[in-house]
Amino acid sequence: MMKIEKPPAPLIVPSPDDSRLTRRVTGTDQSGANVDIKVPMERPLTLYLNAQEIVTMMTIGDHPEYLALGYLLNQNMLKYDDVVTEVEYDDDLQVVVVRTEHHTNFEHKLKKRTQTSGCAQGTAFGDLLEAVESVELPKAELRTSWLYRMTHTINTMPSLYLEAGAIHGCVLCREGEPLCYTEDVGRHNAVDKIAGWMYRHGVDPADKILYTTGRLTSEMVIKTVRMGIPILVSRSGFTAWGVDLARQVGLTLVGRTRGKRFIALSGEQRIVYDQNLAYVEDESARHQRKGEGGDD
Amino acid sequence: MMKIEKPPAPLIVPSPDDSRLTRRVTGTDQSGANVDIKVPMERPLTLYLNAQEIVTMMTIGDHPEYLALGYLLNQNMLKYDDVVTEVEYDDDLQVVVVRTEHHTNFEHKLKKRTQTSGCAQGTAFGDLLEAVESVELPKAELRTSWLYRMTHTINTMPSLYLEAGAIHGCVLCREGEPLCYTEDVGRHNAVDKIAGWMYRHGVDPADKILYTTGRLTSEMVIKTVRMGIPILVSRSGFTAWGVDLARQVGLTLVGRTRGKRFIALSGEQRIVYDQNLAYVEDESARHQRKGEGGDD
Repeated sequence: MMKIEKPPAPLIVPSPDDSRLTRRVTGTDQSGANVDIKVPMERPLTLYLNAQEIVTMMTIGDHPEYLALGYLLNQNMLKYDDVVTEVEYDDDLQVVVVRTEHHTNFEHKLKKRTQTSGCAQGTAFGDLLEAVESVELPKAELRTSWLYRMTHTINTMPSLYLEAGAIHGCVLCREGEPLCYTEDVGRHNAVDKIAGWMYRHGVDPADKILYTTGRLTSEMVIKTVRMGIPILVSRSGFTAWGVDLARQVGLTLVGRTRGKRFIALSGEQRIVYDQNLAYVEDESARHQRKGEGGDD
Repeated sequence: MMKIEKPPAPLIVPSPDDSRLTRRVTGTDQSGANVDIKVPMERPLTLYLNAQEIVTMMTIGDHPEYLALGYLLNQNMLKYDDVVTEVEYDDDLQVVVVRTEHHTNFEHKLKKRTQTSGCAQGTAFGDLLEAVESVELPKAELRTSWLYRMTHTINTMPSLYLEAGAIHGCVLCREGEPLCYTEDVGRHNAVDKIAGWMYRHGVDPADKILYTTGRLTSEMVIKTVRMGIPILVSRSGFTAWGVDLARQVGLTLVGRTRGKRFIALSGEQRIVYDQNLAYVEDESARHQRKGEGGDD
């Protein structure tokens, strides 16, 4: 239980002032008047695992190395015991290459499969399901005081969402403090960047809480479980399969988190109701995510 | 311009009362009390094109035939002039098979590619981009009176969103009237179902308006253009590349549509400002999508 974290895992926060991540565009509003708004960038990034082309992702473009590692880990294409020798990012070509010491099991599988059924990506989900079924998540606590502190910080911290909308956020927290807050036009990219950051810096998942602006679907639950994190929180809602999977593996699943309100549908035994609700504010109009992108 | 639509294209509306699409689950709220909520279903559906396994999608499960056809059309795996002989859905196996008279060009390509680079899905996006660059979209009108009628109808009509949240909606309209309103846990599924419905019933895209609850990303713009629809409207925001592509092909792109407000960033010449704004209500709290799923 007492894994030591390699010390300097750099804190990651949103970069609303990074001019490469947004662009100003001029349009027309409902009265026919010119308006000037900021919109997030969206760029293709092609990922290779050694010599194997894996996928082209649409991403806002920050943290390509974390995104690449996290994608491969969360898709079970890279195992936590594979040795990564290099992550090489080429900004001009919009390519990122993850190199491992040995060929990965995934590359071997892919070779075999392409000779038969054509494309291994289609069947990856079945493998993922299998991979999470045997997981045992650590004991942990979710104090409601942490939960409210965390969501208040996330909703009020300067972010690309507040600046330009149309973006998802994902935040890794410990005891209500954000450690790694990523944003991306793809909601899965945001969580994959966190997985890559954790892997790169050897961050222990056991005492962490993962927050997402997106919905609690089967995919999101599977990723959280693969990352070894025992608690997943969202301001959005649930799907039935997401709930089933969470219950099966004992993940604490908390959704519809707004102001005072939340609903837990799995792993409730980890929740400690230590917050006096009389001291929690309802969500202010200013910090309601307007559902214009962040809330998938 | 005067294509005749095959007459009975059945109107499609959401099915909030269909018990196969939602499930009741019991959880715990912020006070520790039991709560009972409805959540949407999410099921895997594996798609074959003839003998070729294409993808496993996560879907709420209605309209699998439309979803299958629309997915293949929107991915450019099926061309509008390929002859579909059968769409076969097996509810038990959760499999849908689209059969064509001849092998499709995509299957040929896939065969060639898998012998070299392994997986053709990764490169599909480049092909799609090429496919839309040559498109010429029809002239059309977007009267603001239609726009407000349309969004009011969509926001107040009974739907799975209002019933269970965590879901995306996509609506094909003509002159402000919804003709096909689909919902799904995957936002791309919702638009793909509309593409399949249009193809199946020979619906002319030239005088249609497509509405989505999701963001206006490059993928959404590409799909709309492939479907031949000249106008795309969303309550959500934009990405920079979505805007660039829309401008390149002359698609009318309207986002952040809430109550009175909207912003057009491309194809503004199609907009006719015929609505007196004094008679448009601001969005009521009741019909704000709460961003708990529908607003990607």
